[in-house]
Amino acid sequence: MSQDYEVTKQNKIRQIREKGAYDRDTVHGILDAGLVAHVAFVQDGEPVVVPMLYGRDGETLFLHGARKSRVIRLLEKTRRACINVTLLDGLVFARSAFHSSMNYRSVTVFGPARLVDDLDAKKHALHVINECTMPGRRAELRMSHDNELKMTGVIAVDIEAASAKVSDKMPDDDLDDLDAPVWGGVLPIETRFTELLPDEHVKESIEPSAALRAMEGKKL
Amino acid sequence: MSQDYEVTKQNKIRQIREKGAYDRDTVHGILDAGLVAHVAFVQDGEPVVVPMLYGRDGETLFLHGARKSRVIRLLEKTRRACINVTLLDGLVFARSAFHSSMNYRSVTVFGPARLVDDLDAKKHALHVINECTMPGRRAELRMSHDNELKMTGVIAVDIEAASAKVSDKMPDDDLDDLDAPVWGGVLPIETRFTELLPDEHVKESIEPSAALRAMEGKKL
Repeated sequence: MSQDYEVTKQNKIRQIREKGAYDRDTVHGILDAGLVAHVAFVQDGEPVVVPMLYGRDGETLFLHGARKSRVIRLLEKTRRACINVTLLDGLVFARSAFHSSMNYRSVTVFGPARLVDDLDAKKHALHVINECTMPGRRAELRMSHDNELKMTGVIAVDIEAASAKVSDKMPDDDLDDLDAPVWGGVLPIETRFTELLPDEHVKESIEPSAALRAMEGKKL
Repeated sequence: MSQDYEVTKQNKIRQIREKGAYDRDTVHGILDAGLVAHVAFVQDGEPVVVPMLYGRDGETLFLHGARKSRVIRLLEKTRRACINVTLLDGLVFARSAFHSSMNYRSVTVFGPARLVDDLDAKKHALHVINECTMPGRRAELRMSHDNELKMTGVIAVDIEAASAKVSDKMPDDDLDDLDAPVWGGVLPIETRFTELLPDEHVKESIEPSAALRAMEGKKL
């Protein structure tokens, strides 16, 4: 398999091309760092976008939702998805509005969507989503009931085309603007887990597992 | 104007309806708290989604990008957009995979998209985006050059239909699962600005303005 995704009309980076990347390592790294994907599909010729948890297994992204939900039904029917995962890293305060921007890591994936209906394949997909969003948690929980699996719809999207765009920089000001008496730089943005909060049903003898503890304070 | 957005086929909340809201205060509040919007449009019958900064002015959202960029050209041409803004607030660790979920604030907007070409209207739209993303910063910067304005494309999306979905809760476990020796609760997620980092061109005498200082440490 090629290290790079093929550049097509869909995934070609047109603006600020030096920020673009098509290599699998960069694309996979950002997909694995993110937690929420924005999934776009077409309904009656019009665009719809929905935020969803997801999991990556090689060159496939798995999504889940209520079996009867619009996003699951329409991805099953229309068979096409575009998925974007963006992590916001900062605001770039340049010395002109034009050069002001943001720092971010972003991946856009295009691919065919299909309903995962086979029971074993569905269990595998849900396991992937669980491990990507709450690593180690699944093993602490009971098996899923049959009706829970029936009520859950799973969609697989194979990564057909993908591109990454990463910006991690100080302002790129015009030379003429550098003498202006204006502060320039970056205000970083951090997204991180804080501390576990138990619900009212947790018994005194029960502590969060090491897997859960390991997530505390972690930066996305 | 009605306090609530009309419920249509597009914006109707179908799953977990108690989390849904159609009132303008909730929708506006989430739009004003967010920084990045995911903007979906249709290209050759297929869905595309792109992350963008944005600004809200009453019942209109403004987006900007390079005038020649795909997102600006296609929103101008197809005239339909769906925009989602999601703020992630936590992972909900239930005692079953089925009830595990996330806490979030999310708004989805549907509406007609139009290119803002009139120069004064364009300047106004850019001012709105600036104030929403970097409050107070615009006044510190020079006027935009004519060619900068020409190179920038602005799209207005009027909020035709909108819905909010907010989840801020502890696990909603099955009664049968509460006796399992498993920890349950929430791991909050915070997205916040950290501390301003000056670039190499900042002169010693120049400090960040009060407007910029006010953003440090702020939670989204």
